[in-house]
Amino acid sequence: MTYPTTSAERVAYANKIIASQTFSTLVGAQFSEISPTSAELRVPLREDLRQHHGFAHGGLLSTMADIALTFMGATAIGPNVLTSEYKINFLRPATGEELVARASVISGGKRQAVTRCDIFSVQAGEEKLVATALGTIVKSDAPPVKGAEILAEANET
Amino acid sequence: MTYPTTSAERVAYANKIIASQTFSTLVGAQFSEISPTSAELRVPLREDLRQHHGFAHGGLLSTMADIALTFMGATAIGPNVLTSEYKINFLRPATGEELVARASVISGGKRQAVTRCDIFSVQAGEEKLVATALGTIVKSDAPPVKGAEILAEANET
Amino acid sequence: MTYPTTSAERVAYANKIIASQTFSTLVGAQFSEISPTSAELRVPLREDLRQHHGFAHGGLLSTMADIALTFMGATAIGPNVLTSEYKINFLRPATGEELVARASVISGGKRQAVTRCDIFSVQAGEEKLVATALGTIVKSDAPPVKGAEILAEANET
Amino acid sequence: MTYPTTSAERVAYANKIIASQTFSTLVGAQFSEISPTSAELRVPLREDLRQHHGFAHGGLLSTMADIALTFMGATAIGPNVLTSEYKINFLRPATGEELVARASVISGGKRQAVTRCDIFSVQAGEEKLVATALGTIVKSDAPPVKGAEILAEANET
Repeated sequence: MTYPTTSAERVAYANKIIASQTFSTLVGAQFSEISPTSAELRVPLREDLRQHHGFAHGGLLSTMADIALTFMGATAIGPNVLTSEYKINFLRPATGEELVARASVISGGKRQAVTRCDIFSVQAGEEKLVATALGTIVKSDAPPVKGAEILAEANET
Repeated sequence: MTYPTTSAERVAYANKIIASQTFSTLVGAQFSEISPTSAELRVPLREDLRQHHGFAHGGLLSTMADIALTFMGATAIGPNVLTSEYKINFLRPATGEELVARASVISGGKRQAVTRCDIFSVQAGEEKLVATALGTIVKSDAPPVKGAEILAEANET
Repeated sequence: MTYPTTSAERVAYANKIIASQTFSTLVGAQFSEISPTSAELRVPLREDLRQHHGFAHGGLLSTMADIALTFMGATAIGPNVLTSEYKINFLRPATGEELVARASVISGGKRQAVTRCDIFSVQAGEEKLVATALGTIVKSDAPPVKGAEILAEANET
Repeated sequence: MTYPTTSAERVAYANKIIASQTFSTLVGAQFSEISPTSAELRVPLREDLRQHHGFAHGGLLSTMADIALTFMGATAIGPNVLTSEYKINFLRPATGEELVARASVISGGKRQAVTRCDIFSVQAGEEKLVATALGTIVKSDAPPVKGAEILAEANET
């Protein structure tokens, strides 16, 4: 088979895995861009993703951080990773039509990657930073996940 | 009106607020117990809350941590709080029928509370620790939320 | 040789390693108690360990957290660990004659331990919680450190 | 009096405060550059700042993060701040002649700033990233510290 070498191909593969995560599907998360060192995940801000003031729920922002940090880590050190932990800071209430998480790799070693992620709300094309996260992604000893290894292999080509 | 003074009354009030958070409703979160210093939140582990191995999605565990840490903080220093930040460690894959988050107050001052939360998976009555979180909840300057103040007032009675 | 099986023996071994850490020596850190699941580290609050208000410096509290979390992790999964990361919350200004950090193990697996640590100030026998920390300690691939393995072996006896 | 408007003036003021922190003096920390949105702190890696392998002690890296994150926050929202919390990831063992922490402002509001800090080891002019930190700095209600307000006022000129 041929490995993905463009952002479009990487995105297609990542979104196949996303599609097999029922919770990611439930929240409507989709990658829109992936390079070896950056990744962009989008979630349309539907009515059923909010807290009691009508803002995006902190759990939704956390879910986006979790997904973006983890796939960024898998791209750096994959295949077959686990998210060890992360921290998220909420910076301002998130409204708008869409949320976008942009992850990057701070450090990638043999066993672990440290990744960062900023989350923006998008309203009429204007972006505002609403949260930032920092996490640790580690290699798993479990057998590799179908599909997950492709992200990593793509970077070695 | 009368303020809640028992766990059952506090739970009823908290779950009213939860019911007005569309995302908390989407994931099926419900408080089952609240005291001035502890809170218990439950989520049945439905099929649509999982990642690609069939385990509970990290975003779901994060959402539970976010809700439990925040309401615990509101109970300690409310009304009217914001979650400033939290950190979560994932300890093992979460399976089973249900997840339960147990939060407690580490420190509660005039302006901020630091709260902790352990999340357990429940299978045939057996609990396993699957994640732990530590967060900072701060008072908001925004006008109080309908209902939220009740949690705090209940503790002052 | 014989392995330490009492807290006093574990403390003696841990403090030998501490003594070979020039920075731990500089700040005057000493373990006062170690069990397989808990550890207590003490630092007399000298004049040269403060910030500009005369309180204990945040860097000192952080150093205590770093040491206590790490040794607690080594006791759980050692020998030969690295501290991957930790988070610390500062709860109130720390004064008094002495600081004491009490660590415990939240989760210990084959590859990593998650440990927790509360730090107290001590004044005329009265303790106040001044900081809390949560960290991740991982096994290192590097050759074991002289002495470090003893903490772990002691727990296997 | 005149407020500092150049990096050199800001650095002089910040280092006066640093000089009044006995612990910062003990570790030898000095700011080398401060702008409204970035700050650089340096520590020569002396023999008495190490752990048992001869690497920089994690507590030293933490102390640098604590100082850099806090002063960066004071520059953004000062005068008169407290460090609420931070998280640090250790990325590789730190050796070399000197350590340098570079902080930046992610978000600065009325009441709190979120700041970030990368720490590098410097050996023969070559820098390596050894740690990264993310923290929350909040306004204090206590009376302002002599000198601290100057950093903030300088940014309002």
